[in-house]
Amino acid sequence: MISADDSATDAQRRTRGVNGLSGVARLTVQCADRPGIVAAVGRALAESGANILALDQFTTDPKGGTFTQRTVFQVPALQAAWPDLEAAVATHLGKPFEAHWQLHDAAIAKRVAIFVSKTDHCLLDLLWRHRRGDLAMNVVMVVSNHPDLAEEVRAFGIPFFYLPVGSDKSAAEKAQLELLIGNVDLIVLARYMQILSEDFLEEADVPIINIHHSFLPAFIGAAAYQKAKERGVKLVGATAHYVTKELDQGPIIEQDVVRVGHALSTAQLTKRGADVERQVLSRAVAWHCEDRVIRVGNTTVVFPA
Amino acid sequence: MISADDSATDAQRRTRGVNGLSGVARLTVQCADRPGIVAAVGRALAESGANILALDQFTTDPKGGTFTQRTVFQVPALQAAWPDLEAAVATHLGKPFEAHWQLHDAAIAKRVAIFVSKTDHCLLDLLWRHRRGDLAMNVVMVVSNHPDLAEEVRAFGIPFFYLPVGSDKSAAEKAQLELLIGNVDLIVLARYMQILSEDFLEEADVPIINIHHSFLPAFIGAAAYQKAKERGVKLVGATAHYVTKELDQGPIIEQDVVRVGHALSTAQLTKRGADVERQVLSRAVAWHCEDRVIRVGNTTVVFPA
Amino acid sequence: MISADDSATDAQRRTRGVNGLSGVARLTVQCADRPGIVAAVGRALAESGANILALDQFTTDPKGGTFTQRTVFQVPALQAAWPDLEAAVATHLGKPFEAHWQLHDAAIAKRVAIFVSKTDHCLLDLLWRHRRGDLAMNVVMVVSNHPDLAEEVRAFGIPFFYLPVGSDKSAAEKAQLELLIGNVDLIVLARYMQILSEDFLEEADVPIINIHHSFLPAFIGAAAYQKAKERGVKLVGATAHYVTKELDQGPIIEQDVVRVGHALSTAQLTKRGADVERQVLSRAVAWHCEDRVIRVGNTTVVFPA
Amino acid sequence: MISADDSATDAQRRTRGVNGLSGVARLTVQCADRPGIVAAVGRALAESGANILALDQFTTDPKGGTFTQRTVFQVPALQAAWPDLEAAVATHLGKPFEAHWQLHDAAIAKRVAIFVSKTDHCLLDLLWRHRRGDLAMNVVMVVSNHPDLAEEVRAFGIPFFYLPVGSDKSAAEKAQLELLIGNVDLIVLARYMQILSEDFLEEADVPIINIHHSFLPAFIGAAAYQKAKERGVKLVGATAHYVTKELDQGPIIEQDVVRVGHALSTAQLTKRGADVERQVLSRAVAWHCEDRVIRVGNTTVVFPA
Repeated sequence: MISADDSATDAQRRTRGVNGLSGVARLTVQCADRPGIVAAVGRALAESGANILALDQFTTDPKGGTFTQRTVFQVPALQAAWPDLEAAVATHLGKPFEAHWQLHDAAIAKRVAIFVSKTDHCLLDLLWRHRRGDLAMNVVMVVSNHPDLAEEVRAFGIPFFYLPVGSDKSAAEKAQLELLIGNVDLIVLARYMQILSEDFLEEADVPIINIHHSFLPAFIGAAAYQKAKERGVKLVGATAHYVTKELDQGPIIEQDVVRVGHALSTAQLTKRGADVERQVLSRAVAWHCEDRVIRVGNTTVVFPA
Repeated sequence: MISADDSATDAQRRTRGVNGLSGVARLTVQCADRPGIVAAVGRALAESGANILALDQFTTDPKGGTFTQRTVFQVPALQAAWPDLEAAVATHLGKPFEAHWQLHDAAIAKRVAIFVSKTDHCLLDLLWRHRRGDLAMNVVMVVSNHPDLAEEVRAFGIPFFYLPVGSDKSAAEKAQLELLIGNVDLIVLARYMQILSEDFLEEADVPIINIHHSFLPAFIGAAAYQKAKERGVKLVGATAHYVTKELDQGPIIEQDVVRVGHALSTAQLTKRGADVERQVLSRAVAWHCEDRVIRVGNTTVVFPA
Repeated sequence: MISADDSATDAQRRTRGVNGLSGVARLTVQCADRPGIVAAVGRALAESGANILALDQFTTDPKGGTFTQRTVFQVPALQAAWPDLEAAVATHLGKPFEAHWQLHDAAIAKRVAIFVSKTDHCLLDLLWRHRRGDLAMNVVMVVSNHPDLAEEVRAFGIPFFYLPVGSDKSAAEKAQLELLIGNVDLIVLARYMQILSEDFLEEADVPIINIHHSFLPAFIGAAAYQKAKERGVKLVGATAHYVTKELDQGPIIEQDVVRVGHALSTAQLTKRGADVERQVLSRAVAWHCEDRVIRVGNTTVVFPA
Repeated sequence: MISADDSATDAQRRTRGVNGLSGVARLTVQCADRPGIVAAVGRALAESGANILALDQFTTDPKGGTFTQRTVFQVPALQAAWPDLEAAVATHLGKPFEAHWQLHDAAIAKRVAIFVSKTDHCLLDLLWRHRRGDLAMNVVMVVSNHPDLAEEVRAFGIPFFYLPVGSDKSAAEKAQLELLIGNVDLIVLARYMQILSEDFLEEADVPIINIHHSFLPAFIGAAAYQKAKERGVKLVGATAHYVTKELDQGPIIEQDVVRVGHALSTAQLTKRGADVERQVLSRAVAWHCEDRVIRVGNTTVVFPA
């Protein structure tokens, strides 16, 4: 749900949106499964004059499972209708079903900070897709513990903040949080080679997506391609997941692999894998920004594009 | 919609079903898009005490498009509730929205006839998956214009009918129709090397799924692997589609490909492709039998498993 | 029964071969890399009047690496020429380069024992491909610790031996070895749910290929699909590897994956994965039987088909 | 400017190479198949003190087929040894077997001109991989019939030549040829929306690689994604091929596909396909530049990386 104090900036942000249709919104719902939820959603939206464009629903278990739903709909004069829409959803859905729900104006792109170290392929792929208008996001800053990619980033017209991480990591995290808080809806770790502290995760208080350079849970931690070479695997992969306090253990959003042969060196595996990493991360970010991903426990429901 | 005169046999067919849960049904809907359809479905099902397990909805175009929906739900005492359920759907959905809709009892497997010539791989894969309980279908007969696969089929406990096709194809088709009419809900052409006449399609009056041994629209017609070898393609594929009167032009349900190198002969391409054919056909048949496929014009909407 | 005297039976075995051309043989070579090896192979084969049909060569590291090579060639009157061929290879290659080399008559299919427990999909896929002539092997027996699949196997005309494994596993292994020794060139574990002892591996003294139901090294050991469901992975996979004394740690021959969504239950993951398992195992067995796989340390070089 | 005298510039070009090892060269061979060719290659290289690092050989047909081979080898003091190497290959291979052969110094990257119109994704991917050192090529110029991408290209430090194509196409082609002749070893059409004349192909006299936005031979010509949308295919693809005088009919180097669902519009198919296009083109260019691709008739033999 978009809180009241965000609404002031919404007008401006709307103009930067990457929408196609006008008046499109999305409703995501998560609650304990019970009969009648779909009907309640339908009623709430029909009352608001909404025309449903797409609807996906999934229940993890017919007995005692979790109900999840994503609905995309169009409302004439959406901005004017927004308060009524929120009220209708709260009345029909929020209260009777104790549902967690969020309404998203599709014209307002999520504000994203990208964290990066020295490796550029994931970062550049995101920035390049962003520039093409392929991703429903606004990259509002790139933060790095190395200065190397400053020029590259700024060529895209995006602020680059160099915040070195020394022996006292908490100082760097404090500086990062000052940049982030209130300014971003999502943090993307595009090969950022530092582990974020629990405190940081808590204070940043936005979803964080990381790209890991292996098919998790294989090859957790560093040097994944070297481990893959030593084990002689025939596919290398990449995994995009939400960051939690356990390293490489958060809910997986997307994974993919590429076939590799015996002839590839570790360096070549790394390059081959880089292609998968950037695709997997781009897909995960795109899906998150289109509100397609719902976390259920330590897994995700991803409603397909 | 299951017609009244089917209900007599339903009781028996139900016992052969391949269901997991009891009381599960599916509703598929197709109509011109208008606001309020999802709410109407929700109301109809809520009135019947249904708990929605899964719901997918797709509209081909927000302006003047076609609305499609598949809903899976559970109703206590489904058989007793069936008439009320039908009435509720007709009242809320059928009439006000002029919708085409069908209710399917998930416990009643579709009755399938498989047509085959001499090549066994697609047939055996279907029969083998059927025996494992992977496909929600009852194979009630196999029909062939060659006697070669009789023993193989009968070892699965399934009737095999040998109907040679001579110079007068209409005689063979008449014999086929006598076996089929009233007895099957779906015909699967598992590498059946005869073209069915328009008359046959009309009189059989059930969906017919064909597997074509190429990635359509490439390599229409016969000798697809030889054409692929000559063209030097790097992938060979297969396409499962509904049969229409235009050869290899019907709505595509599923396609897939496999990578092939220069070293493969046409015979090896054929074997490599056979693996893709059987997978693609099995998936298409599975999806059809689970009511996941909705035809819209000459294309399909496939709600994913 | 197949006699222990290999040379005596070759004549008979040859007639059962699955070759296309006549007089085709394969030479595999492995040795420390040094200049001149390829020329030596070329000389040895040219002296024997061989026409090389295909040749693949790979060196793991230009400095101090391992040289591997697979050569397919045709010799007029191969059987008569065999002793000269062996002598030429030994002279030009074996001695000067201290190479490990093997000559294989492509017309003599490898003799294979398949071990299975209760799950049939990998077994049936191998038997079915075998019957089609897709795999250059002769399945001489199926061994199982359960009686369930006896009828199925014998319908293919292949002996089925039921050897239950009780608390004293060594007794069962002794009985297995009596069936195997001298009679088989390869053992395939097609979802065989027993761990073979080190003694068995040593005494059997033939390569053993296992199919593991995950993308190794993820999900080692039992219940791989349940672990995959719990972790929420977006792909499930399978791995064919040579068996060594460390469980699921042997050299990987082939791996593949299939995309899975959040909606699949563990049972459905298991079925989806079964398709990958049988493909991966079939490919690994095919490649082994065509002498395409060369073990180097704990990895494999696989020369592609 | 790069002089037309190739031998003179080799010394300079060598320093710009993207090699790993020193003294590495490649030999590609194509001729009518006869016994003894591999031995001849081995002899020629052994005489030159070469250590073979990798060797791939393929014969299209054991009877009357075409022999193809790619050999990578290392020679101490390669530059000094080059004339002897050429002589040895000519003596042992060229003359007795009437073979077409080429020797390539792996340290000398191919000089590439990229042709582009307005669409940037293939171009940028090539330039970005080039900058990373992933492709063994030197992009010496970008030629476009539109000015749009000038700044982008020049940011990579690469000359951009804007040559508009008016009603008299031959004038533009004449201007292009003046830039190209003597200066490039390869032309890459990275979504260049003009058809090159037969005269141009003849006078340019270097290989030309084009990326086509479909899985050929499906959807030849323009508007491939729209045709794909209309046909309702479940995969969209891309094809990299050598340009010949017949439109989209040249030898295919590489193809790939991506799965698409019913929900994607033509614009979304185009974006999804763009990812495949850039990967397919990058792979094809990489393989060509590493001398992995040998044309045989209207097909290619591609020795894998």
